[in-house]
Amino acid sequence: MKATKKEMIYEGKAKKIWSINEDENLLLAEFKDSLTAFNGIKKSQELGKGALNNKISTQIFKILETNGIKTDLIETISDNEQIVKKCTIIPLEVIVRNIATGSLTKRLGIKDGTVLPFALVEFCYKNDDLNDPILNDEHALLLNAIENQDELNYLKNEAKKINSILKEFFIKKDLKLVDFKIEFGKDVDGNIILADEISPDSCRFWDAKTNEKLDKDRFRQDLGNVKVAYEEVLKRILS
Amino acid sequence: MKATKKEMIYEGKAKKIWSINEDENLLLAEFKDSLTAFNGIKKSQELGKGALNNKISTQIFKILETNGIKTDLIETISDNEQIVKKCTIIPLEVIVRNIATGSLTKRLGIKDGTVLPFALVEFCYKNDDLNDPILNDEHALLLNAIENQDELNYLKNEAKKINSILKEFFIKKDLKLVDFKIEFGKDVDGNIILADEISPDSCRFWDAKTNEKLDKDRFRQDLGNVKVAYEEVLKRILS
Ligand SMILES: Nc1ncnc2c1ncn2[C@@H]1O[C@H](COP(=O)(O)OP(=O)(O)OP(=O)(O)O)[C@@H](O)[C@H]1O
Ligand SMILES: Nc1ncnc2c1ncn2[C@@H]1O[C@H](COP(=O)(O)OP(=O)(O)OP(=O)(O)O)[C@@H](O)[C@H]1O
Ligand SMILES: [Mg+2]
Ligand SMILES: [Mg+2]
Repeated sequence: MKATKKEMIYEGKAKKIWSINEDENLLLAEFKDSLTAFNGIKKSQELGKGALNNKISTQIFKILETNGIKTDLIETISDNEQIVKKCTIIPLEVIVRNIATGSLTKRLGIKDGTVLPFALVEFCYKNDDLNDPILNDEHALLLNAIENQDELNYLKNEAKKINSILKEFFIKKDLKLVDFKIEFGKDVDGNIILADEISPDSCRFWDAKTNEKLDKDRFRQDLGNVKVAYEEVLKRILS
Repeated sequence: MKATKKEMIYEGKAKKIWSINEDENLLLAEFKDSLTAFNGIKKSQELGKGALNNKISTQIFKILETNGIKTDLIETISDNEQIVKKCTIIPLEVIVRNIATGSLTKRLGIKDGTVLPFALVEFCYKNDDLNDPILNDEHALLLNAIENQDELNYLKNEAKKINSILKEFFIKKDLKLVDFKIEFGKDVDGNIILADEISPDSCRFWDAKTNEKLDKDRFRQDLGNVKVAYEEVLKRILS
């Protein structure tokens, strides 16, 4: 489709979001090359990272759509740009974990690499000033982050479905889906749909044989070869 | 009843727990005068505090029993001692909040003193090494802190019932029940019952007219007159 940028309505850490002249119910998401971690404290640039994430996220959203998950993706129109349905983002970061690593291991004293007995779903309040605090269901309701318990349950179920689909997909590509963060939004009709992106910025992927990290942890932990890893993920997805 | 101490099986920050010669299914809880805060980092002594908490907790547990809540309290046998049913403590601190203060305000950016639209229930993992981290339901199940979701729901409901009973009781004594922490255990028959204590060490009480703090926050925040406040709470309970 043809889309021309109208106004930049948001610049985040990883994307610029634009309104477009052609349709007020659509947005253009422009993927940036910037890399950030620890709530923006650590910053860098990686030429081509935005294009890689745009491609990877596009493929993942397409796989999810094929499997019955409603998403905001309309069309990927260039290396760095995709057109999405405009949503009111639900201010919850929905995290799904299959293997314990990162903050979970420190918070709960679980050994890094422990395979969890079930897919763990966590909600964090999308609020950079508060450092995205972890919430229980009642906190989410109290903060009016979500309208009611039914919607929360819907998010949990949808997150678990997405996890099942992607875990199965990635293991065939010799990648363990360790954990990931997703965002949901309400479209103009009030339907809750998957929004934002799913990429090595927001997932942890470990090579199934070597447990080599192929995601943003390479940047967080200064492991080097960040772009090589993202390229490897894209290559395996397309294989 | 007659009870003679056999062996000290636990010394905590606020109580010593003894087995007794007369009945292996009972324990003797000895309330200490020590005051601690911030996970034991701040420490002090207040002569007579143990006796006050023993009396206050006894009265509160009796009120709860009268209102249909099952507790571990058998009999208070001296100024500092009570006999309780031996439990396997469920390693969850169950927190109920009516008014936002303390950690909640900082974590979620809610203004101190905000009356919450409903009684908020939180679970923290009873683990001093991890600093009692806050949990969602799935974390509690993952950690095997609780057997299943039904038991978790039971704790939530019981906590809300206890809150309703006590909030109503205390407002008649011109005290706002701001928040409190409780513990549950399984007795020898596997029933979940209220255990431990409910006292100004584990509750926040504000004077209904002046909002003066009448609880351990006087110690946490160096407001002075700690014992005077605990005595005032006991006086009002008995009034
Ligand atoms: N379909 C959509 N409609 C409206 N907003 C969206 C949509 N998809 C994603 N967004 C929002 O657009 C922004 C994308 O920018 P980016 O990912 O760079 O943000 P960020 O730096 O991660 O910060 P934050 O997510 O905390 O706002 C996010 O705020 C995201 O919630
Ligand atoms: N009926 C009961 N049966 C067995 N244990 C109990 C019972 N009631 C309370 N307890 C436990 O006895 C201990 C009381 O000691 P205290 O309140 O001083 O502990 P604490 O310093 O708060 O530390 P912690 O609660 O973290 O162990 C607690 O561990 C509490 O869980
Ligand atoms: Mg983002
Ligand atoms: Mg205690």
